[in-house]
Parts: sequence; C-alpha cells; structure tokens
Amino acid sequence: MPIKLKTSDAGFEERFAAFLTTKREVSQEVDDTVREIIADVRRRGDEAVIELTRKFDRFDLDSSELRVTSEEIAQAYEKADPATVEALRLARERIEAHHRRQVPEDKRYSDKIGAELGWRWTAISAVGLYVPGGMASYPSSVLMNAVPARVAGVERIAMVVPTPDGALNPLVLVAADIAGVDEIYRIGGAQAVAALAYGTDTIAPVDKIVGPGNAYVAAAKRQVFGKVGIDMIAGPSEVLVVADANNNPDWIAADLLAQAEHDQAAQSILITDDEDFGASVEEAVDRQLSQLSREEIARPSWKDFGATILVNTIEEALPLIDRIAPEHLELALDDDAGEALLQRIQHAGAVFLGRHTPEVIGDYVGGSNHVLPTARSARFSSGLSVHDFVKRMSILKLGPDQLRELGPAAIAIAESEGLDGHARSVSIRLNL
Amino acid sequence: MPIKLKTSDAGFEERFAAFLTTKREVSQEVDDTVREIIADVRRRGDEAVIELTRKFDRFDLDSSELRVTSEEIAQAYEKADPATVEALRLARERIEAHHRRQVPEDKRYSDKIGAELGWRWTAISAVGLYVPGGMASYPSSVLMNAVPARVAGVERIAMVVPTPDGALNPLVLVAADIAGVDEIYRIGGAQAVAALAYGTDTIAPVDKIVGPGNAYVAAAKRQVFGKVGIDMIAGPSEVLVVADANNNPDWIAADLLAQAEHDQAAQSILITDDEDFGASVEEAVDRQLSQLSREEIARPSWKDFGATILVNTIEEALPLIDRIAPEHLELALDDDAGEALLQRIQHAGAVFLGRHTPEVIGDYVGGSNHVLPTARSARFSSGLSVHDFVKRMSILKLGPDQLRELGPAAIAIAESEGLDGHARSVSIRLNL
Repeated sequence: MPIKLKTSDAGFEERFAAFLTTKREVSQEVDDTVREIIADVRRRGDEAVIELTRKFDRFDLDSSELRVTSEEIAQAYEKADPATVEALRLARERIEAHHRRQVPEDKRYSDKIGAELGWRWTAISAVGLYVPGGMASYPSSVLMNAVPARVAGVERIAMVVPTPDGALNPLVLVAADIAGVDEIYRIGGAQAVAALAYGTDTIAPVDKIVGPGNAYVAAAKRQVFGKVGIDMIAGPSEVLVVADANNNPDWIAADLLAQAEHDQAAQSILITDDEDFGASVEEAVDRQLSQLSREEIARPSWKDFGATILVNTIEEALPLIDRIAPEHLELALDDDAGEALLQRIQHAGAVFLGRHTPEVIGDYVGGSNHVLPTARSARFSSGLSVHDFVKRMSILKLGPDQLRELGPAAIAIAESEGLDGHARSVSIRLNL
Repeated sequence: MPIKLKTSDAGFEERFAAFLTTKREVSQEVDDTVREIIADVRRRGDEAVIELTRKFDRFDLDSSELRVTSEEIAQAYEKADPATVEALRLARERIEAHHRRQVPEDKRYSDKIGAELGWRWTAISAVGLYVPGGMASYPSSVLMNAVPARVAGVERIAMVVPTPDGALNPLVLVAADIAGVDEIYRIGGAQAVAALAYGTDTIAPVDKIVGPGNAYVAAAKRQVFGKVGIDMIAGPSEVLVVADANNNPDWIAADLLAQAEHDQAAQSILITDDEDFGASVEEAVDRQLSQLSREEIARPSWKDFGATILVNTIEEALPLIDRIAPEHLELALDDDAGEALLQRIQHAGAVFLGRHTPEVIGDYVGGSNHVLPTARSARFSSGLSVHDFVKRMSILKLGPDQLRELGPAAIAIAESEGLDGHARSVSIRLNL
C-alpha cells in the first residue's frame, strides 16, 4: 500500500525524511563494461558498433545500413495514423513557439569607467540525440529534444535509436522528420554514445549528447562528459499533486496513475488538506488501476512508491514541496491559492496550475518541455530548453584609460598569486 | 620549439588537424580509488574525512577543527598586504556589477489559444565551492566562483580548501570573506567532494559543487553528478592571440607567456598575417622567458604546446578560431576588424578586444568571469555565470477551453505511445 503521512502526526518529520531518501532504482555497476565499449568504438569505429549491435540488439547490418534512409522515413509516414501525425505536428508547432521565447539576447554595455563588457550567444554546431528503443521509444521525446536544438540554431542533429531485433517505431521516424533531425542511425547503448562522441567512418562526431537511456547509456554519457557536453542524467520520474477538496477525485487519481504507468520506479504523491478527499482519491486510484493496460507497471509503482500526505493547511505544503523538489507539480487549487503558492516555491521542474491542467498536457502539446529534472535534481537543474543548445562568449574591451585605471589592481593580485607573467602582461602596456 | 604552421603550406590541413588533437594531459585512471573514498565518506562521515586528510594532506585535526574560524579569517586579514586586499575588493565589486546583469527574468504570457505559459527562476539553495590547495590556490578564483553564486541568491556557500601540511594561503580566506562565503572547511580531494555531496555530521550537504581541482577532484565530481549538480570539468587552459603587425611584439609575447606560466600543459597560440611580426613575437617570448619566476613551467608549455600560425589574411583566421574553440581569445586588431571578426566567431570562451585588453585583466578585475571552458569545450559550454546558480521552473496553465482545444491531440499521442493512463487523465476531464 502507498505510504500515508500526516504532518500532524508525532513522527512525521522522521517518516518524511525517510520517505525522501527512498531509493527507487537499483544502481547498476556498469562502468567497466561501458569503458570497454567506448574504448572499442574509439579503436575500431563502425566495425565495433556493428559487432556490438549484433550482440545487444540481435540485429545484423553493415556500415552502409547504419543510417536510416529517406525511403524508410517516407514509409514510416505511410504506416502512421494520420491523426497522430497531425497531433505531432501541432505539438511541434507549440513547442517551437514556446521555445522561441527562450532564445537569449546578446548584450554590450560600457560601465562607469568606460570599459566595454558583454556577451554573445552562439549555437552548438552538432548535437547527438539518444532515443531509447523498445517500450520507451516515444515520438514525443524526439520532439522535446530536437525542437529546442533546432530553435537554438544547431546546424546538425544526429539521432541514434536502437532497433532490437530490427524493430523501429515508425512514429519515432515521423517525429524526427517533423522536428527536423538531419541524420538517424539505428544503433543504441553505450556504443551509440561512443560513436556520437568520438565519431566513426560513418558517423561524424557531435559536440553534445542529449536524451534519456538505460544504465549503460547514462554511464556512457557520464564517461564522455568533457569530450562532449551532456544533458542531465535522467532518473525515475515523479509527480506531486497538491489538491484541495474542491477537486474531482477521479481526475486527480487519473493524474497520479498517468505518472505511475511510466515505470515501476515512478512516484506519484498526493498532498491534500482534506482527509476524506484523500481517501476518495485512493479509492479512485484502486478503481482505475484495474482498467489500465499498463496495470502491471502502475500498480507496483503506486504500491511501492506512491504516497498521500495530509496537511493541516495548504500553506503547510510549501516546505514539503521544496524538499521533494518534484519533477512535475500540479497545483489543483483555486487560481489565487495556486498563484500565491507558485511565487514561493523554490524547487520544482514544472508547475501545472489549476484544475484543468493535467500534467499530461505538458508531456505532449502544452509547448513547454517534458524533459525535466527527476529524482530531486530540480534542486540544481532545469528542464531542457534552448539554453542547453547555446553557449555564451564573454566580451571585454578596454582602452588605454581603462587599462591604466584597472591595471594596478590586476598587477597586485597577480603578484600575490605568484604569477609574474600575468603582472608583466599588464605592466608592459603601462610602461611600469 | 613551438610548432609553426602556415595556411599556405601544402600539408597545413593535416598538420592543423593533428595539432588540434594533441593530448596535453595524461589522463589518470583514478576512478576506483575515488569510488572507494566516496563510499568511505558516505559510510563514516567526519571520521573518514579526517583520516583521509591525515593521509593525503599530512595534517591532523578533529571534527571541531574542520571548519575555519572567524578568528582565523580576522588573522588572515592581518597577514595580508592591504593593497592586495583593496585590489580584491575592487575585483569583487566589478565582478558583482557585471554578473548582476546576468540575472535572468521570469516570464508569463498567454498564447493565441489563451493557454498561459512561462517560467520562474529560483536560486540553488546550497553550493559547495572547491578551491585547490598549494600552488593553484588562487584568491581570484574564490571571487570568480563565489560572487556569481551570491548574486544569484544562493543562501549557503560552503567552501573546501585542502591545507597540505596545515598551510593555508591567507588571501584565500580574505577572498572568501570578501565574496561572502558562509563556511570554510580545511579539507580537499575526493573526500571533500564526497562530504559536500553527501554531508557528514559537521558538513551539511550542498546541491551543487563548483570549482577546479586535480584528477581526483574531477573524478569525484563526475561520480557525484546526479546526486548534486557540478560545473564543467576543467582541463588545461589556453590562449589564442590573433594579432596583426600593428602590435608591439613584446606585449603579445607577454600575453602568450601569461598563459604558459599557469601550467606545463597550458597552451599559447599566435595567429598572425605577418611572418616578420610572428618572428619578432617568438624572439620576444624567448627573451622574456628567462626573466619569468615561473620559467620552469612556462618554457615547457611554450616549447611543447605553443604554436604560431601564419595566415594570408586575418579573414583566414576565422575557421581556425572556431576549430580551436579557445578558452581565451585576444583579437589584437583595429577596432573595426576585431568587431567584424567577433560577430562571426562561433566557438570561444571569452574574447578580449583591441590592443589594450590583455587577457589578464579578465582574470582579475575586468568584471567578466575567468572560469571558462577549456580544451575545446567552448564548442558546447559557457563560462561560469549567474545561470550556473539558478534553475528554471516551467509554468503551464490551461482553462477548460484550452484543454478542450489541445486535449484530443494529447490523447492521440498518448494512445500511440501505449500510455492509456495519460490519455485518461485528459479524457476524464473532457467527459470523453
């Protein structure tokens, strides 16, 4: 049964602290295997990638078949349901419109001594996008990763997606095409990450790798970090729903289960100030569970990691929200109450306001990004955005007057650090 | 001797490509040692930290002595040269003024269907700052890491600095105090990173760890990434100076050596369109080398990794700059030529414009940050800024009308992904 906590209970603090540290994923020690795979791909390139694909994906190909062809993409459109293709186009349009507002602005200014400072943003040239195969091969994730890169001005987006036993979700190809992905390779695992980071004869290296994957992919991203940039390491995801009694318990139950059906390690948490309402939601969850096609995933998620927390007032939810630092936060409250809470929250990935904003809308067609910091990492990171695909070049320009004004302080610090050469690079210009 | 390349030579492309991949650091395989240290600190906390400090820093302390006291900070001011303290204060003031302009703005807007979107930026609550001990224990780096965190609104900044044999640079304490660091612990290495990430009885855990360190520190940061955020992994640094013949060769030589004196693995590169000028700079480098107190560092750096590249026109420098993606780029050119080049550069950490902006000013008192992407990582990352200490919460709010408009597309995608529970969370609100 999901855990039940009440802030009014004597042992609350202890139980809540324990709840926060619950491990939801068994960490796999795959570092050594991954290190060997990366070294092998660096050494033998395509040949290693092909061998490893045969081994792990039970799928035979040669170098010329690594890349998905435009014919295959055209065929994928034919296999796809037209209404879904239209829905993906709407999603792309809305994601693009929202992310365009994130493009950061360049800046130049003169300060009070006349020194010029500023910065210029430029796009990363080439980005690799990892898309998982099998059950978690989501077309929506392709859009969420590729569209912001395109908006940022990335010139080349290379996607990799494993095709276990040769099977490839046609909607993933359609989504890649709609998002403007330039190249698609039917490979996955640590070997795909290594190929993107170091390049092979067939695959040119990229500058940054984004996208979720299993433990091997995560370990590979960690190991190639530095050679290329990477996005966050995705953990099991979660939703926290803060709901008062003026909600339909069935709606809230559906939101909790939408999270739970992702993964047995997913977590759904309800915070409410009404004990009866909480009980109604739990009953609704039980009722709806048996109607889900993914019941065998959602049920253990809810049973093992689900929680309801009863608070005396919604106000009391605030510190709990920040400590949970949820990936997704629904505030199913009246407008005023939701907005007031929103302004005071410190740590959350994405906030869904009001009773008509199920988190699922944000997964697909809201326009905001569904790649969000999981497992409490909203404490230190943000959801994916245009910012992840641009970088800032800082600019400094002095004239002789400003150099004279600032020079002596620079020399003093340089000398205190034992860096004579630094001091000289300034003093030589000041005839000191 | 430093390498000499000419774009007009037949073998240029091949030699330049080889130059770009020159390894400047031997990568140390320290992962297993670091993994054990982190596990030990997680298990035994303070006790492990104290033992490891005794072992690696030859320094004995108990839990109550881990933290530097306010008396010690007061004493540090007494030991410090007042002019240097003033210079550090000027530096802090200028760094703060510049970084205030980086604070990002919140946003809320309604789109064409009336959906509300936006985001809110909030600060990371607690940040750990790693400061190396010994020769590379720079007060300027303390300012460059701590001031942006303070400007971002970080509530708690905890600094760690190893004190080999008990020795601690008083200016590091002064800089920490000037920057507003809240806590200072005299520990270093992987054990300090582990203590910051997981906490001990004495040291509360932080949410993100920044600052440079040796191979052990870098490996530890890589391993704790995910549990906490980390900044970039710093590699050996470099300067690229693009200079025409209208420069004083002594000035340019001094700039090249200011970089070379950092580290034997540092790299100084000159690109010029005038062969005689290039030769004059090289002669000036040789002359100045013997006058440097850190000659034994600067000479091998220049000899092993230095380079001059002769181009036919400054225009030709552009693609070379982007491929080098230098940490520091000096454009010692006329204003017009420098500005024109700047607007077209894609990859560089920081650009210093004109003949009176030696890179060293940016190290200390320019106001911009000196923590910059090294070793070609400017292809995918930026210098340290306020952005590294804030994160973005995304906001979405629909009313019934917007949910009706977007709902069917969300349901279509959810069903195509086999996520019935997602579809239901929308359809249940639409009475579908």
